[in-house]
Amino acid sequence: MLLSQINDPSDLKKYSVEQLTPLAAEIRQFLIEKLSVTGGHLAPNLGVVELTIALHYCYNSPQDKFIFDVGHQAYVHKILTGRKDQFDTLRKQNGLCGFVKRCESEHDVWEAGHSSTSLSAAMGMALARDLKGENNKVVAIIGDGALTGGMAFEALNHIGHEKKNLMVVLNDNEMSIAPNVGALHNYLTKIRSDRNYLRAKDEVEQLLKKIPAIGGKLAKTAEKLKDSLKYMMVSGVLFEELGFKYLGPVDGHDLPGLIDSFNQANNVNGPVLVHVLTTKGKGYSPAEEDSFKWHGITPYKIESGQVLKAVGNPMYTEVFGQTLIELAEKDERIIAVTPAMPGGSGLVKFAEYFPDRMIDVGIAEQHAATMCAALAMEGMKPVFAVYSTFMQRAYDQIVHDICRHNANVMFAIDRAGFVGADGETHQGVFDIAFLRHIPNMVLMMPKDENELRHMMKTALDYNDGPIAYRYPRINVLGVPLDEELHTIRIGSWEKLREGEGTTIIAVGPMVQVAEEAAEILRRDGTSVTVVNARFLKPLDNHMLLDLAQHGHHMIVLEEASQAGSLGSAVLEFFAEHGLSGLDISLMGVPDRFIEHGSIKEQLQEVGLTAEAVVRKVQEYRSGQQYTYGKKVKPS
Amino acid sequence: MLLSQINDPSDLKKYSVEQLTPLAAEIRQFLIEKLSVTGGHLAPNLGVVELTIALHYCYNSPQDKFIFDVGHQAYVHKILTGRKDQFDTLRKQNGLCGFVKRCESEHDVWEAGHSSTSLSAAMGMALARDLKGENNKVVAIIGDGALTGGMAFEALNHIGHEKKNLMVVLNDNEMSIAPNVGALHNYLTKIRSDRNYLRAKDEVEQLLKKIPAIGGKLAKTAEKLKDSLKYMMVSGVLFEELGFKYLGPVDGHDLPGLIDSFNQANNVNGPVLVHVLTTKGKGYSPAEEDSFKWHGITPYKIESGQVLKAVGNPMYTEVFGQTLIELAEKDERIIAVTPAMPGGSGLVKFAEYFPDRMIDVGIAEQHAATMCAALAMEGMKPVFAVYSTFMQRAYDQIVHDICRHNANVMFAIDRAGFVGADGETHQGVFDIAFLRHIPNMVLMMPKDENELRHMMKTALDYNDGPIAYRYPRINVLGVPLDEELHTIRIGSWEKLREGEGTTIIAVGPMVQVAEEAAEILRRDGTSVTVVNARFLKPLDNHMLLDLAQHGHHMIVLEEASQAGSLGSAVLEFFAEHGLSGLDISLMGVPDRFIEHGSIKEQLQEVGLTAEAVVRKVQEYRSGQQYTYGKKVKPS
Repeated sequence: MLLSQINDPSDLKKYSVEQLTPLAAEIRQFLIEKLSVTGGHLAPNLGVVELTIALHYCYNSPQDKFIFDVGHQAYVHKILTGRKDQFDTLRKQNGLCGFVKRCESEHDVWEAGHSSTSLSAAMGMALARDLKGENNKVVAIIGDGALTGGMAFEALNHIGHEKKNLMVVLNDNEMSIAPNVGALHNYLTKIRSDRNYLRAKDEVEQLLKKIPAIGGKLAKTAEKLKDSLKYMMVSGVLFEELGFKYLGPVDGHDLPGLIDSFNQANNVNGPVLVHVLTTKGKGYSPAEEDSFKWHGITPYKIESGQVLKAVGNPMYTEVFGQTLIELAEKDERIIAVTPAMPGGSGLVKFAEYFPDRMIDVGIAEQHAATMCAALAMEGMKPVFAVYSTFMQRAYDQIVHDICRHNANVMFAIDRAGFVGADGETHQGVFDIAFLRHIPNMVLMMPKDENELRHMMKTALDYNDGPIAYRYPRINVLGVPLDEELHTIRIGSWEKLREGEGTTIIAVGPMVQVAEEAAEILRRDGTSVTVVNARFLKPLDNHMLLDLAQHGHHMIVLEEASQAGSLGSAVLEFFAEHGLSGLDISLMGVPDRFIEHGSIKEQLQEVGLTAEAVVRKVQEYRSGQQYTYGKKVKPS
Repeated sequence: MLLSQINDPSDLKKYSVEQLTPLAAEIRQFLIEKLSVTGGHLAPNLGVVELTIALHYCYNSPQDKFIFDVGHQAYVHKILTGRKDQFDTLRKQNGLCGFVKRCESEHDVWEAGHSSTSLSAAMGMALARDLKGENNKVVAIIGDGALTGGMAFEALNHIGHEKKNLMVVLNDNEMSIAPNVGALHNYLTKIRSDRNYLRAKDEVEQLLKKIPAIGGKLAKTAEKLKDSLKYMMVSGVLFEELGFKYLGPVDGHDLPGLIDSFNQANNVNGPVLVHVLTTKGKGYSPAEEDSFKWHGITPYKIESGQVLKAVGNPMYTEVFGQTLIELAEKDERIIAVTPAMPGGSGLVKFAEYFPDRMIDVGIAEQHAATMCAALAMEGMKPVFAVYSTFMQRAYDQIVHDICRHNANVMFAIDRAGFVGADGETHQGVFDIAFLRHIPNMVLMMPKDENELRHMMKTALDYNDGPIAYRYPRINVLGVPLDEELHTIRIGSWEKLREGEGTTIIAVGPMVQVAEEAAEILRRDGTSVTVVNARFLKPLDNHMLLDLAQHGHHMIVLEEASQAGSLGSAVLEFFAEHGLSGLDISLMGVPDRFIEHGSIKEQLQEVGLTAEAVVRKVQEYRSGQQYTYGKKVKPS
């Protein structure tokens, strides 16, 4: 077995080029077997087996820096850098991270869960290298999908201008997560499909090889002539115009060809782009046939390709997608906008029903947001469907273009709260804090799927500016669904349970947690009030004033950054109303990044459980926590 | 006088093409005269006089939509759409806005103070038009500088793919605000300077004109042949590859030529880009010679071009620039990064001293931030110098690339707080709220220029992650500067004045306001405590606990969004420590966008003045404000 001998990239270099092809087959088998148990990003990694081997064969990591754009395509890199024995723990709490992770290995130099950052990172590393007078190589590996992200273009524009030595490997698999859109994609397809060009290029190269080496005075001129002839045949004029040398396209599953290209690239002075054609899911037919489904996958049976899905209620995402179809049937103004996530956002069916009213802009959150503003200003009712964490990319556009224009944009914020195995880069815990302070914004979160549906109707009926509903990456509760959808009064909360002394103000899935805590307490003889704070902005002023009159202790319970989210909003409200003397406990996500694991483990880790709420109530009642408070309370 | 007859674009159309040239001269004179008194964006508007006239001549606003990228180039548009009589109030409170403003005119369809949004807006409007079955034209006017912003590329990529009818006017003046950088700029320069190409194109066109019109069956083929010949000569291959028809380059000061080009563009099916070459400051020699200085200008003498500057202390920006040079002389790791604002950020001198250590990335905040993360991870000490409001563009990169990596990036956040005449889009009032909840971030603001210098030293000495100092767009106080710079203990506040009962916790220029209020109160026999909350994160726990023990009333005073900023942080702190019973008044910027005017007027408008603080203290002391508070205070 070739793979078993590799514990470090240096081991790889002991093999001949011929041995690398069987090694690739072993790695592929390893991935298919391991991921059938753990799940993970199978198709992207099957696509880059040869590419990753060739990189480690031609370069010297960690002196040379490999920067994987979106670290989920780095499994092969992990296998080759001493981590193959940890794959049983992939994406589990305290286990191997599903992305590049600096604390795991010195070979991991750049972490990324969001796309399109690799070129900027490469530029920074190349700049630092030159300033320090070092001479390592810097290599960014970026997919064709990620290349459409605006920041990748900003970096291309800068790199092409500064002319630093730096290599970009364009991993062109014709996909981001969904099939690619965009003019750049069309351009790459043209290169891919131009067979005449490929044949011509081969012929020219063979011809050039036949010219004998010329020495003496003419050597340089002859080389230049060769180069010119080669470049006349080169197709990547767009990249050339932006200041890159373009090499390719290269078959990404042909190891000798890849190694040859990387060696060529190594001799280029200035930025070089190697265009590598790969097939997502390569070598495992179910994944090759439906690389979209097999992008990120749960455990599966290897032979049949049958995916093992937990039986359960549908996800919130699905309820959103279905409800949007119902609403769109009755309202022609609705148009759905997604930044490359039609599947993840539950919009595939919507696109079938309303092909003209579903716009996939590619990985382009900024453009999506601003385009939504313009759509709304022209009388449409755009729904910007986006993951909480990716929405971060559009913060300025939300402030400057949507909220400042007070445009009637609806936001469907998916993956709000913890996301589980994807970990730190994907946790949707900041959006309340980064949206709440923006003027004109209305922000909701439902306690269950039935309420989500009413919120979607509420958003549609609302015509006074931007309005957002956020929902988590979990299965719905399975509550009965009202047939008739109605509008919820803006800013109205819901009192679910009336108790004494303590009020738990909870939002989203935390309402369920609060109810569980209240049940435990009830059995213990303690009754508490539970409020569903379904509007994060505006708050329910009447209810808050009422609550303040009927009890001094409140717990604000939210699966969101404790700084700046609902808890702060409640505190600000009482401060603004001169209501002191209340004891308000904040239970939210603490001030650190929360790593991968299951959502349940993540909630446990930060103390967002019914048990923790019960403890908090009991502690308060027994007066334990007032170490400082006691001293300053007005007597 | 031709201009005096124009109160609406329809009036313009009564003139012959020949009359437009003298009209342009009148408009230019009007701009030069008016702005000599009010100040404003002179050079950009002098550059687009003919361009704007030609657009209004060829299209029908407001049915046809003109979208100006960064609305400060819309003065001529304002003049032609009935607002010429309001120019005396330009950029003044309740006066004419310096940017496109929807509430001013039906001809203003899109507002923007941040660059690169126009293409996304145009795409949204074109999409809406087609869904509604309308047939108006949509025209985006974007500068070559703005085109480097990533979101503009995201939009190009989408537009080129969807093939909607839409025109982009590329206003190429070889400048953003500073001289342009980037490969795209180099590419445009190549087009500009390729004289052979221009001559060839002219010759081909003359040749084509000589071919007699062909009727009958062959007419279409002949036209196609002509087109093909034309396009063979066309230079804008990069745009063509992205799915646009490219027309140009066109002399942007030649009215008949512009009108001809726009009419041609009007006949193109699908997206078309017209490349227009303009000269910033055209027609006023001081502005033509130094269009950088004359981009945005204070009042000036017309004959001499002498700029009338208020005498006063230097700006904080200058102190930053000078201090950074001092620090960089002793520390080679310092590298300054600016997104197209070397002048505005006070880095011009720095670039002279350290040309290799000053990186202007163009309008590319996202790339700048992520590149800084990589620079830091490679041992450099990057300073990302950026305006508060433009930093919004990099929110995700700050979360995902800088703070999650805990990279030692220093942020110099300029224009923090109100900015005056630029108004809504430029107010730096959100950054505390959008940075404070991000784990690992340290955030400071100095009370004066001396403290700013120590904070810069503090940031340099800090090696535990990202650290930011923010400073306002005002003149410094003129305090003595310490020669020796020292590190301020992270999270330490400063008690400036010890009083009784009330504590004013203030930050930045508000410290001065708090001191003034304290003086007024002192004369009145009331003593208050004043604290300089120079760390917005982390807070000074010890001081807060101490303050809580010595007085129940606190005022948090900040020139920042009241939601989510320092006030919230203080409230959260006391809640987390179980310290209830404190009366905390929040004085910040209310939950709405604050329009243009002077900074003083803006502060007055939102009640951030010494008088307002005095009133707040007196009200509290007389117990007036406790309408609700009284009822719920524990007895």
